[in-house]
Amino acid sequence: MNKRGFASDNNSGVHPEILKAISEVNTGHTIGYGDDKYTRQAIERIKEIFGDNIDVYFVFIGTAANVLGLTSITKSYNSIICAETSHIHQDECGAPEKFSGCKVLTVPTTNGKITIEGIKHHLYGFDFEHHSQPKVISVTQTTELGTVYTPDELNKVTDYAHDNGLLVHMDGARISNAVAGLGITFRDITTDIGIDVLSFGGTKNGMMYGEAVIFFNKEFSTDFKYIRKQGMQLASKMRFIAAQFNRYLTGDLWLKNAIHANNMAKLLAKEVEKIPKIKITQKVESNGVFAIVPKEYIPVLQKDFFFYVWDEGASEVRWMTSFDTTEEDVRLFISLLKRVVR
Amino acid sequence: MNKRGFASDNNSGVHPEILKAISEVNTGHTIGYGDDKYTRQAIERIKEIFGDNIDVYFVFIGTAANVLGLTSITKSYNSIICAETSHIHQDECGAPEKFSGCKVLTVPTTNGKITIEGIKHHLYGFDFEHHSQPKVISVTQTTELGTVYTPDELNKVTDYAHDNGLLVHMDGARISNAVAGLGITFRDITTDIGIDVLSFGGTKNGMMYGEAVIFFNKEFSTDFKYIRKQGMQLASKMRFIAAQFNRYLTGDLWLKNAIHANNMAKLLAKEVEKIPKIKITQKVESNGVFAIVPKEYIPVLQKDFFFYVWDEGASEVRWMTSFDTTEEDVRLFISLLKRVVR
Amino acid sequence: MNKRGFASDNNSGVHPEILKAISEVNTGHTIGYGDDKYTRQAIERIKEIFGDNIDVYFVFIGTAANVLGLTSITKSYNSIICAETSHIHQDECGAPEKFSGCKVLTVPTTNGKITIEGIKHHLYGFDFEHHSQPKVISVTQTTELGTVYTPDELNKVTDYAHDNGLLVHMDGARISNAVAGLGITFRDITTDIGIDVLSFGGTKNGMMYGEAVIFFNKEFSTDFKYIRKQGMQLASKMRFIAAQFNRYLTGDLWLKNAIHANNMAKLLAKEVEKIPKIKITQKVESNGVFAIVPKEYIPVLQKDFFFYVWDEGASEVRWMTSFDTTEEDVRLFISLLKRVVR
Amino acid sequence: MNKRGFASDNNSGVHPEILKAISEVNTGHTIGYGDDKYTRQAIERIKEIFGDNIDVYFVFIGTAANVLGLTSITKSYNSIICAETSHIHQDECGAPEKFSGCKVLTVPTTNGKITIEGIKHHLYGFDFEHHSQPKVISVTQTTELGTVYTPDELNKVTDYAHDNGLLVHMDGARISNAVAGLGITFRDITTDIGIDVLSFGGTKNGMMYGEAVIFFNKEFSTDFKYIRKQGMQLASKMRFIAAQFNRYLTGDLWLKNAIHANNMAKLLAKEVEKIPKIKITQKVESNGVFAIVPKEYIPVLQKDFFFYVWDEGASEVRWMTSFDTTEEDVRLFISLLKRVVR
Repeated sequence: MNKRGFASDNNSGVHPEILKAISEVNTGHTIGYGDDKYTRQAIERIKEIFGDNIDVYFVFIGTAANVLGLTSITKSYNSIICAETSHIHQDECGAPEKFSGCKVLTVPTTNGKITIEGIKHHLYGFDFEHHSQPKVISVTQTTELGTVYTPDELNKVTDYAHDNGLLVHMDGARISNAVAGLGITFRDITTDIGIDVLSFGGTKNGMMYGEAVIFFNKEFSTDFKYIRKQGMQLASKMRFIAAQFNRYLTGDLWLKNAIHANNMAKLLAKEVEKIPKIKITQKVESNGVFAIVPKEYIPVLQKDFFFYVWDEGASEVRWMTSFDTTEEDVRLFISLLKRVVR
Repeated sequence: MNKRGFASDNNSGVHPEILKAISEVNTGHTIGYGDDKYTRQAIERIKEIFGDNIDVYFVFIGTAANVLGLTSITKSYNSIICAETSHIHQDECGAPEKFSGCKVLTVPTTNGKITIEGIKHHLYGFDFEHHSQPKVISVTQTTELGTVYTPDELNKVTDYAHDNGLLVHMDGARISNAVAGLGITFRDITTDIGIDVLSFGGTKNGMMYGEAVIFFNKEFSTDFKYIRKQGMQLASKMRFIAAQFNRYLTGDLWLKNAIHANNMAKLLAKEVEKIPKIKITQKVESNGVFAIVPKEYIPVLQKDFFFYVWDEGASEVRWMTSFDTTEEDVRLFISLLKRVVR
Repeated sequence: MNKRGFASDNNSGVHPEILKAISEVNTGHTIGYGDDKYTRQAIERIKEIFGDNIDVYFVFIGTAANVLGLTSITKSYNSIICAETSHIHQDECGAPEKFSGCKVLTVPTTNGKITIEGIKHHLYGFDFEHHSQPKVISVTQTTELGTVYTPDELNKVTDYAHDNGLLVHMDGARISNAVAGLGITFRDITTDIGIDVLSFGGTKNGMMYGEAVIFFNKEFSTDFKYIRKQGMQLASKMRFIAAQFNRYLTGDLWLKNAIHANNMAKLLAKEVEKIPKIKITQKVESNGVFAIVPKEYIPVLQKDFFFYVWDEGASEVRWMTSFDTTEEDVRLFISLLKRVVR
Repeated sequence: MNKRGFASDNNSGVHPEILKAISEVNTGHTIGYGDDKYTRQAIERIKEIFGDNIDVYFVFIGTAANVLGLTSITKSYNSIICAETSHIHQDECGAPEKFSGCKVLTVPTTNGKITIEGIKHHLYGFDFEHHSQPKVISVTQTTELGTVYTPDELNKVTDYAHDNGLLVHMDGARISNAVAGLGITFRDITTDIGIDVLSFGGTKNGMMYGEAVIFFNKEFSTDFKYIRKQGMQLASKMRFIAAQFNRYLTGDLWLKNAIHANNMAKLLAKEVEKIPKIKITQKVESNGVFAIVPKEYIPVLQKDFFFYVWDEGASEVRWMTSFDTTEEDVRLFISLLKRVVR
């Protein structure tokens, strides 16, 4: 059997209920490319959660959801502003630039959150054709550093954006962990505070593949079906993505998974804090724990538990928990950590 | 239960053995993005079939396999030559142009096959910087019209290409049906006759999602990992694509599925031929039957069996069979057809 | 001194009056990038000619005018339909595809003109996301084969386009020769018959460099200034392009030049027709003569007069006359031709 | 007559000798697109200056030289590192991203120069397909802030780059002013210290239009002719660009112009320094003077002399001198400035 680790929440497999849901729609023929009842059901379910006045499209992965969502609300001469830690800047190999043609501008951050001050720094050159025109602020919720924006923090960003003629995209690869961590609803940090486009992910919380691009303003999605197809993200057997979302969003499976992963991170952090020489560097508000670990310990730990070094220079590591992380996993890791430190 | 039809081989669900294989790898944690044992196994299996000296990368869908494979062997100032019926020309919403920057040139065809004469028509302007430089010939096997190139026919194309400094890409979304139809091996129409890059598909023959880009010359794949990532086609939970290919290529599942689909098409064609007023328009060499059906019959037939009109003007329809098409499906359809014609 | 030939109308130098106009604006400082009085004057002059309700932007060359004009009226998932002889298809090294992301579709032609029948062949797949959405018809006036559309012929194309929800772009690299040849006004073949975007060239008729993109519907040009800058076509010392257009369009210089070039082509054609074994292949309606010349004569002729072989296979050559072609040039060439044929 | 100001060195007209040179090649017919003797001469002249082992291509403008030069040494999944003040980042409306597909990464700077520390910050994620692969360092000489890299400073950058597998691009829109300021040769800061690609400009120093892309390693230019054409930068009447470069590089015209402009900046700076309340912010090493001017003075000054506010927040302005700036211009401006300050 494969062992569990803390490398990433996408090192987990698929939640058994999701797999079962996939299996249950595997019956007979169904029109491909999304014109099927399962896809309609999944979209309906998402509308129940986020509100009726939205448009929903499924793609394969988070990078695609981000890139195609951003493309749909920009022209190639625009710029997109994000925290320097953002997935769209660090981890998409330039896919946003390549596909949208836009410039990506970064804002320094210590906790993964974008700042108004940092955004403001990039807001100039409007109407000046020599300069890429600022158009979108992209925020990640949960951030790449495991921190979570409060609704109020996000609202400040969306208000500032809209006051300045900008739109707001949210990379929600781990939005469920944020919602679980805050104890609120999806709407509280999207529909109700003025997010314009959301990449709504589930793969990091128990799904196999599939991501939803959600438009909170239908004027931005009028030609998204073409953007998705030209972006190589139109699934033929769409029902198997739809079935996953249907199950994910039924009976609070998304929430249970997220709460569990978050709890495991809290447990891990609580135990790590007791260990000398290990320093937690970010607030543990979701399912990630960031910590500085003396360099020499890292390879020893990685022999038994896989995880990533986040910042080589600072000797900072990232431990992600998942819907399937067990208390046993945490305990075993903590005892190893204690042994290594001693 | 969903009924079956003849709309497309991707209207089918997933073969139960494939689903079982997905389920079997759903255990514990596994490194994401392809650096896992299942992916290695799948690649090994593909090498056993196509030869050792290849490079294999998984992507989500056929459009992506085509576009990214083509991008890896071109520069933006090149042109790609294909039959006018090609999926890359007709059905990818301009994804090849958008992502590769290349020009796509078409060759007229009556049976879905490209012709040397047609290719030759586009071979000029070499070294002339005003003109997009011809670089790739793309063939589809099985063609979009259900016909199948013989190894010899393909060899003529690859020889002509290589003699003229061009490369050959094969869109193999339905390559299994071609191999089954010809009663040969995959190698006979790829490795052994000089295909340079292959899009190797399985979704139309029982898989859920996932396609392999196979390079027969490793110098073309040196930076494909970046192209794939920037092309938004790197799956995090890659093991679930790998598991499908592992099973698909084990115990001749691919072949059984393809033979069955082909046989159902033959059966369908045999019965259709007996019916007056219906005229089969293409050789039935794989799992598709193309026929001219008087316009007024079509909506009546479509009430019970979904299928596509291929050419509105000619009143030509396409009936695709699949791994799960039953003799009963064919018989029911034929009796309906007979009733309608009478 | 450089000798004259019949290679291309852009092998000529600059008309002395144009050079003088450049010299005359070379005085003191002027705001760069087009916000200067010379540019305003040139735009005003163009509005006097084409009508007030237009928007005008200068770029460097015809390829850029075509590509950026087309980009401004398309999205990347659109297709552009043109005659297979079109400059945008044959002679721009894929710049339209690379920059706009669009697919370019061609219509067979014997005389350089697009046909409604040929356009119709490409009009399908509307609203079907798998298919590049047809959006623009591009016509070239004067065509690349030296023929000229009548206003009525163009009107049929624009009406057909607009009736089908398409727009019309005109590549007017040699529009002056067409207007001169038809004995009409610029408006008669642009503003008045519904052209949407025009590439208005002068370099082939006596200018040094510079081309105007003219929008007949201002809603298409709202963000053209960004497209032009991102398209690397914003001149800093714009006054020198503006000065050329000012002079070109003053005192009918454009017309005199065009009439002269056209007359030289007619003279050439008249004399060529008398020579056995040489067969003129296209109507001589502007400043180009196309003719089939026995293969063995061509290198002999090219020793003294440079010109291009248009179609190697057919042994067809192209002879272009220019504003500075003299009767003497024609006579010398004709006597050489006669000697060679004898 | 147009008045002179300090807005930009491209607000000047064309040096009379350059205009004369243009006029002198305006004789007879010449093959277009660069296959002519004037272009060959200009390339030879550039080789005499920069060394034989280079490749030279002319384009229209600096933005294009930068973008196409960068494209020729990158693939779309690469990143380009530059100072945050760089023209390629601030003033090209995203053209580098749109055309090359690359990510542009910035380094903070106080004086317009890139720092090794800043470059180092971006050098990670090598071989990691999720991350844009760092490939090029782009430096601007003269920098956008009027400062000049010494040969030694540049050599540190090129050595660092090459030691880390990167290439170095130089934006030399004002390279002549730097060479004049340093009292060295072009080779000292290009060929001899390992620049890989140079955008060699003249428009800001007396030319009308035209820029040269110079490759110091011919392996990077093998397909540049196609990149240039597809990049819409191939001039038909190339001789008029060539003639400018021929004259610009003959008899030290470039140097005289640059020295003069630099001297005028020094004179301006010397006088400005005497005026209270005005604070020069950058070393005056070329033809630009940057100064903080109390906000209320700026519009008064701009009534008579046009110049740009560089940094609204800091009330910092930029005064550029040019080859045609006179001591009288400077004196008049200084007296106005004194009046305004009093």
